[in-house]
Amino acid sequence: MTLQDLQLKHAGRLADAIAAVACRGYHSAYPEDPTHPAYADGSRAAGEAAVRAAWTQRDGAIRGEERSAFGAPFDTAYADEPVDAVLARAEAAAPAWAALDPVERAAVALEILEALQQRAFEMAFACMHACGQPFAMAFQAGTAHALDRALEAVAIAVREMGAYPARVLWEKPDARRPLRVEKTFEILPRGIAAVIGCATFPTWNSYPGLFASLVTGNPVVVKPHPTAVLPLALCVDTARSVLAGLGFDADVVQLLVDTRAAPKTKALALDARVKLIDFTGGPEFGDWLESHARQAHVFTEKAGVNAVLIESTGDYPGLVRNLALTLSLYSAQMCTTPQSIYLPRAGIRLQDGMTKTVEDFKADLAAAVAKLVADPVRAIELLGAIQSDATEARAVEAASIGEPVFASRRLAHPDLPDAVLRTPALYAVPPEALDTIAREHFGPISLLIVTEDADAALRHAHEVTRSRGAITWSVYSNDEAFVRRAKNAAADAGVHLTLDMTGPVLVNQSAAFSDLHVSGHNAAGNAALCDTAFVLPRFRVLQTRRYLAA
Amino acid sequence: MTLQDLQLKHAGRLADAIAAVACRGYHSAYPEDPTHPAYADGSRAAGEAAVRAAWTQRDGAIRGEERSAFGAPFDTAYADEPVDAVLARAEAAAPAWAALDPVERAAVALEILEALQQRAFEMAFACMHACGQPFAMAFQAGTAHALDRALEAVAIAVREMGAYPARVLWEKPDARRPLRVEKTFEILPRGIAAVIGCATFPTWNSYPGLFASLVTGNPVVVKPHPTAVLPLALCVDTARSVLAGLGFDADVVQLLVDTRAAPKTKALALDARVKLIDFTGGPEFGDWLESHARQAHVFTEKAGVNAVLIESTGDYPGLVRNLALTLSLYSAQMCTTPQSIYLPRAGIRLQDGMTKTVEDFKADLAAAVAKLVADPVRAIELLGAIQSDATEARAVEAASIGEPVFASRRLAHPDLPDAVLRTPALYAVPPEALDTIAREHFGPISLLIVTEDADAALRHAHEVTRSRGAITWSVYSNDEAFVRRAKNAAADAGVHLTLDMTGPVLVNQSAAFSDLHVSGHNAAGNAALCDTAFVLPRFRVLQTRRYLAA
Repeated sequence: MTLQDLQLKHAGRLADAIAAVACRGYHSAYPEDPTHPAYADGSRAAGEAAVRAAWTQRDGAIRGEERSAFGAPFDTAYADEPVDAVLARAEAAAPAWAALDPVERAAVALEILEALQQRAFEMAFACMHACGQPFAMAFQAGTAHALDRALEAVAIAVREMGAYPARVLWEKPDARRPLRVEKTFEILPRGIAAVIGCATFPTWNSYPGLFASLVTGNPVVVKPHPTAVLPLALCVDTARSVLAGLGFDADVVQLLVDTRAAPKTKALALDARVKLIDFTGGPEFGDWLESHARQAHVFTEKAGVNAVLIESTGDYPGLVRNLALTLSLYSAQMCTTPQSIYLPRAGIRLQDGMTKTVEDFKADLAAAVAKLVADPVRAIELLGAIQSDATEARAVEAASIGEPVFASRRLAHPDLPDAVLRTPALYAVPPEALDTIAREHFGPISLLIVTEDADAALRHAHEVTRSRGAITWSVYSNDEAFVRRAKNAAADAGVHLTLDMTGPVLVNQSAAFSDLHVSGHNAAGNAALCDTAFVLPRFRVLQTRRYLAA
Repeated sequence: MTLQDLQLKHAGRLADAIAAVACRGYHSAYPEDPTHPAYADGSRAAGEAAVRAAWTQRDGAIRGEERSAFGAPFDTAYADEPVDAVLARAEAAAPAWAALDPVERAAVALEILEALQQRAFEMAFACMHACGQPFAMAFQAGTAHALDRALEAVAIAVREMGAYPARVLWEKPDARRPLRVEKTFEILPRGIAAVIGCATFPTWNSYPGLFASLVTGNPVVVKPHPTAVLPLALCVDTARSVLAGLGFDADVVQLLVDTRAAPKTKALALDARVKLIDFTGGPEFGDWLESHARQAHVFTEKAGVNAVLIESTGDYPGLVRNLALTLSLYSAQMCTTPQSIYLPRAGIRLQDGMTKTVEDFKADLAAAVAKLVADPVRAIELLGAIQSDATEARAVEAASIGEPVFASRRLAHPDLPDAVLRTPALYAVPPEALDTIAREHFGPISLLIVTEDADAALRHAHEVTRSRGAITWSVYSNDEAFVRRAKNAAADAGVHLTLDMTGPVLVNQSAAFSDLHVSGHNAAGNAALCDTAFVLPRFRVLQTRRYLAA
């Protein structure tokens, strides 16, 4: 297939994506339903078989860092490449990739996304086992939504690269004859891009940066988290196959695997050849990258302390149900899951003038969670499994941080005895316990904070968010004046706001083409998926002026 | 006039500006010709009289830092305000300004620009005396072009603030009934903006940041260079009058004057309330701001070492004439004036197969410059006057840096005995003299560097630009292969390229709506006037999602 054919093939999807970004309504190019006809019959079984085969792939010196959170015999080996060799290959691959037109690179990127879609089940099973995601989430967030977010990033990058005309005549009126200067604008890449993946959402969080850097002309080195390599290895493998199949140097996209014992990320991040870094992970290393990798533009998504602020509601049962789901989904191993749940001391005002007391709420939420996780066979479809030993340990040790409203229980799955299943926990802590509150407890641990009134909660959450950052605030209120104050506080704290989530949509979910994920304006991260600022630093514009004599 | 009337009044000009930025052809909203009917009869005399009156304005504790480079009795006094009081007033003015719609603020900004246009002659005389600009330049670059660059920044900011819909319904298909979420996107300012002006082009260099920050909702504090206060004082005075006249708090735009003995810039730049800083000035302080004012987004235009690279030409007389003008204009007190002129040892190839030797070129350029400045009364219209004692001293001391091709001479103007007029100088230095070459000699001092061949010159200029930065490269060549190599070297060094300037357009000139001034990708500065990245950090987007129950 020629590049021109490829552009034609994907032109409609790209144009729709660019339009969707401007509208910010619902849009999706990759169906999230595994039974959708886009996914061929038999591809589920084939995908699962491919992942099982990958588990026993022994070609490489790095082994034993991944495990299946569901207890499967996961032991893939990966090549142990030196950073320098990978960067040298990336540099060698760079000029030919940079020489393409932005729209040509976009066509190649969309071809890679389509190839990834064709491996959707394989990717879903990889995400499920490496990250502990429930299968439905692994298919949706790990695969379909990740592809949508990648497409969104490509669309914004293409739009921005197209903001300059390739060539224009500047003609200035003058007394005798016009002055004429021919001006050209060329889009140039920045250099090598490093994408540093996380353990829980390696695809969803990495694809935007990966594809934005790729389409703007930069070779990409993907460095997965040592405990969640397979999903990004699949992604890189797919990208390389597509590149090679189209006659490009596959080294435009490379995988760099390391171990926790012998990490390579700092050497990669500080190398003078690396000009772009996308990082998802802990605040400590994210902060380090921001202050040390000064030769590169560093995009970070770190972590914060998300809040639910309940003032009043028109649908109390819906609130409780939604919150129980929110806390249970993937055992709260999401950067968007609320950690602090604020209640006014006087309880929750209902629309009919009644009030639900703090004790009512505790009992109702505990019951709703208990109902959701009552059956381990069904619970696993919601909770997934615990990705890391550290998260499991935190859940166990959390008992000491406050008065338990309900504690985290380990569930025994009848068919998967080694799966690490954990129910969410909620601990009541006083607002004064700032050491406990203003700290991320990643995993199934949330805190109930009862304050004097809803405005005190707002001030408290504002203070915590200003110091430690947050990605989400979820507010329940029928009082528009309170909502306005919440908006002002959220605005000042740099956190996006979600209101009155009482149905099946959860605050933890972020929709491509519509929702901004992370604001970039508090400690939870310095970049948003995906705004214009997420793509601009990935390319440069070279202007050339040539005087045209009359 | 209501805000709505104001929007209607300026809608056409704004729409034209937004369209012009996308086209990048010639566009201007503010005529550069002082005889254009846009400028009322008698306004020249009135403007000059107003500046003369300002010279003797004695209301303020700060005096004696400004002088007229043309020897006029310039002794304006300014108020000595504490940084904290100015910031406190800016903070107080902030909420009401932030509460306006972006398009409302744009209308106010365009009203201010129009009011500045009405004071065009006054501003031109202020720039002429404070900066030493020749009158024509003071009217064009100091006034009309500065207004165009301001309008360009406003246009880009309005376009980018409009990239999000105010409100959208997100409706996701679902098995039973669609999921519906109402989403709003609000544009929020960043905080207080500080604009730190320079001594030579206080308006042209400061307006883009000033107006971009203003239109995105941030109060602005303008801190002029102590030796060139009046132009920005006029600007702030005009802005405050327009704001007050429309019923806004005038403190949305404030002036902060300091002295070299008691500077206020560091205190201003490090204040936690200051979130945006636009700086034009020396590399040392620019670097300091970039690394120390970490609470703010810092936009810098520092300085570099600009190059002319001559390989061959189809119009040798045009080249010599253009270069003589380029070096003479405003006595090379422009950040865009070339400092290094590279020639191949074998001379300049002409189209007819002939060659101009290095000695030919030296003689021809010297003669062209001598002709331009032969008559001091006419020369002053090109050279202007020397803005600072330091520049004058550098020009005098430059004799030691190389072998003079032609030296800088002080010209005595018959009518203006105190005007500091200086002709440009050219010194031959060997390419090995990197200490001399890779250093800015601000003012009428250029270096002739003869290299083995044109490609050696390219490598040399590339190395200097990579280490010290550059804003312009001017290349003369008929050889498209060499031009391609020059483009690649320019791209790698992050400098925009100008080719074959042999007519009346000069490499030092940068046209609003068309030319990118500074690339942001080398040591000459981290921001470009005006690309999208120049406006994005000045505002934030707050997303609010509200679940809509069926």
